[in-house]
Amino acid sequence: MTNDFSNKYAVIMAGGGGTRLWPLSRKGQPKQLLPLIGQETLFQSTVARLEGLFPPERILVVTVEEQAHEMKKQAPQIPLENYLIEPAPRGTASVVGMAAMVLQQRDPQAAMAILPSDHFIRNVDLFHYLLKAAFEVADDHYLVTLGVTPTMPSTAYGYIQQGTILTGDYKYPSYTVQSFKEKPTEETARQLLQLGGHSWNSGMFIWRTDSIMNEIQKQMPALYASLNEIGAAWGTAAQNEVLGAVWPTLKVETVDYGIMEKAEKVAVLPAGGLGWSDVGAWASLFEVLLPDMSGNIAANSAHHLALETNNTLVYGNGSDRLVVTIGVDDMVVVDTGDAILICKTDQSQKVKDVVEHLKKHRQEKYL
Amino acid sequence: MTNDFSNKYAVIMAGGGGTRLWPLSRKGQPKQLLPLIGQETLFQSTVARLEGLFPPERILVVTVEEQAHEMKKQAPQIPLENYLIEPAPRGTASVVGMAAMVLQQRDPQAAMAILPSDHFIRNVDLFHYLLKAAFEVADDHYLVTLGVTPTMPSTAYGYIQQGTILTGDYKYPSYTVQSFKEKPTEETARQLLQLGGHSWNSGMFIWRTDSIMNEIQKQMPALYASLNEIGAAWGTAAQNEVLGAVWPTLKVETVDYGIMEKAEKVAVLPAGGLGWSDVGAWASLFEVLLPDMSGNIAANSAHHLALETNNTLVYGNGSDRLVVTIGVDDMVVVDTGDAILICKTDQSQKVKDVVEHLKKHRQEKYL
Repeated sequence: MTNDFSNKYAVIMAGGGGTRLWPLSRKGQPKQLLPLIGQETLFQSTVARLEGLFPPERILVVTVEEQAHEMKKQAPQIPLENYLIEPAPRGTASVVGMAAMVLQQRDPQAAMAILPSDHFIRNVDLFHYLLKAAFEVADDHYLVTLGVTPTMPSTAYGYIQQGTILTGDYKYPSYTVQSFKEKPTEETARQLLQLGGHSWNSGMFIWRTDSIMNEIQKQMPALYASLNEIGAAWGTAAQNEVLGAVWPTLKVETVDYGIMEKAEKVAVLPAGGLGWSDVGAWASLFEVLLPDMSGNIAANSAHHLALETNNTLVYGNGSDRLVVTIGVDDMVVVDTGDAILICKTDQSQKVKDVVEHLKKHRQEKYL
Repeated sequence: MTNDFSNKYAVIMAGGGGTRLWPLSRKGQPKQLLPLIGQETLFQSTVARLEGLFPPERILVVTVEEQAHEMKKQAPQIPLENYLIEPAPRGTASVVGMAAMVLQQRDPQAAMAILPSDHFIRNVDLFHYLLKAAFEVADDHYLVTLGVTPTMPSTAYGYIQQGTILTGDYKYPSYTVQSFKEKPTEETARQLLQLGGHSWNSGMFIWRTDSIMNEIQKQMPALYASLNEIGAAWGTAAQNEVLGAVWPTLKVETVDYGIMEKAEKVAVLPAGGLGWSDVGAWASLFEVLLPDMSGNIAANSAHHLALETNNTLVYGNGSDRLVVTIGVDDMVVVDTGDAILICKTDQSQKVKDVVEHLKKHRQEKYL
């Protein structure tokens, strides 16, 4: 067991677009850059959540050109050289590889935690504890993933089936991974919950850079070769030229399918009580914001006058527009000035269909 | 039977405020002055509906000072001297009396139709036919009221119970009135519908000016005396002074309670098929506007994108704000720019509670 954290890095993955929080999330305003919960953006909360564990110099952000400027503005404490720009999205396997390659050049002993930029975690203390525990396991050359103990039979996440408990002297119960399961049907999800031993795949990974590079070499040799090519030019005048030439040739692949599923030494730490949410749809705001006695939430300074209204979220646009609801139950109302969404909470996944419709009908100004 | 219409007048009563169509109707913008249905305001539609029956010179408008300016703008074809200003609202009995007094001075043989300014009537031809028929009956010194054949057990209207059919050679079946009934409970309303012979009290009255003045003299002698006092000064330099002095002393009374209920020669023409609505709440727009295949209505140029949405009205504010509904049924959505109402259709009567709340909390800007 080691308490040395000086070679531990956090890598925030922040390239995604996301359409499930329309009309708030837009082409130029992806979810992670929005103040969905409180005053901070999800990206800012993700950075703030690392305080006390990683100094800003050891936080990397991998993002795309279009978002980099806004991110640098939102998190000025992170050194500019720690922002890595993906020339174009080529899946998380490529991103993970680039980050590992860059970190190895800085410190061959580096270990890293891969963290999505657009998730919410209520219990930060537990999160820190789990990260430390996960790095312990990762130091033993495991590829570690944080699982989230399911609170409902969700069909929105992949599931991780745990195997046997690891025998090392770890501070948190850690398991081998029996299998990764794709997003299930609701019936299967119910069965997995009853069965137990299954966690949601949260997309948080912890490993040594040499472990992940070895695994990439074994399972995605083409990516490994490309990373070495980029690595050879990294920090030289040719860096951007090589990156720009090589990147588009990479196979689009996720780290889950490309690496984790076939890797031998994989571990999972099943985390209950994190208060985790991927904020994947408007409905999930009910998990992360505090409702009033009637179950209603007035978010982003919404002026909401509720008559006979229950379990309804009103997300304002910062103006003093008054939103009055009468006889409304289980609804999400989002006002962005140019658009208003009124959506039954349990159908908030369909917001992506709206975005599809708007694209199809070329209603660019709402996208 | 007479076809001479030259002594027939229409008197549009347009003083009301109304809070049941908030947030569209406001202190300075009463219901009748709003383009609720199509491009015209309800007042304009009321005036247009008289075309072919009454020339503008024989249309009077009784209103209050605050609304007169806007009305003159909306109906410039009506001569300015035909706008009568109530110094303050004193109930419909006073308004009817003033109009009758003014018309008698113009033409002692005048007969008048009292018409609310804020109702909707789809079948204008039938409306004309009924007015002509009603004037026939009125010419025989009846106080005539147009009843509306109920289409549901509404608790929002008073009911008129018809008596025996009139024996005169009238072009439309006309009845004596057995009784006027106040707004019933829902159970009573159901019974009245089953029983038959009951009409909704639409607030449309037709009578000779001498008939109604005689009845006022008999039943409301104080009002009669006051009207004579005003009449003596009418058209002189003292007109406004006398009106201003006498009007506030009038008893506040409706024509229904003050005159009709106790009058002897009262007749009702029960009208089915008029397509009448008092547009008394947002729910009533479903009676007067044409919904699409899913029962949805996009009014006032609303941009409505409907997914899994049924029987929902979206009333826009003329802007290009996009309103998206997902999984919404039986709802009214009204966007006025500074306020948004989202109201279950069958609870749209509660809109007046919102106005009460806003008054109580002195949120003047939304009133």
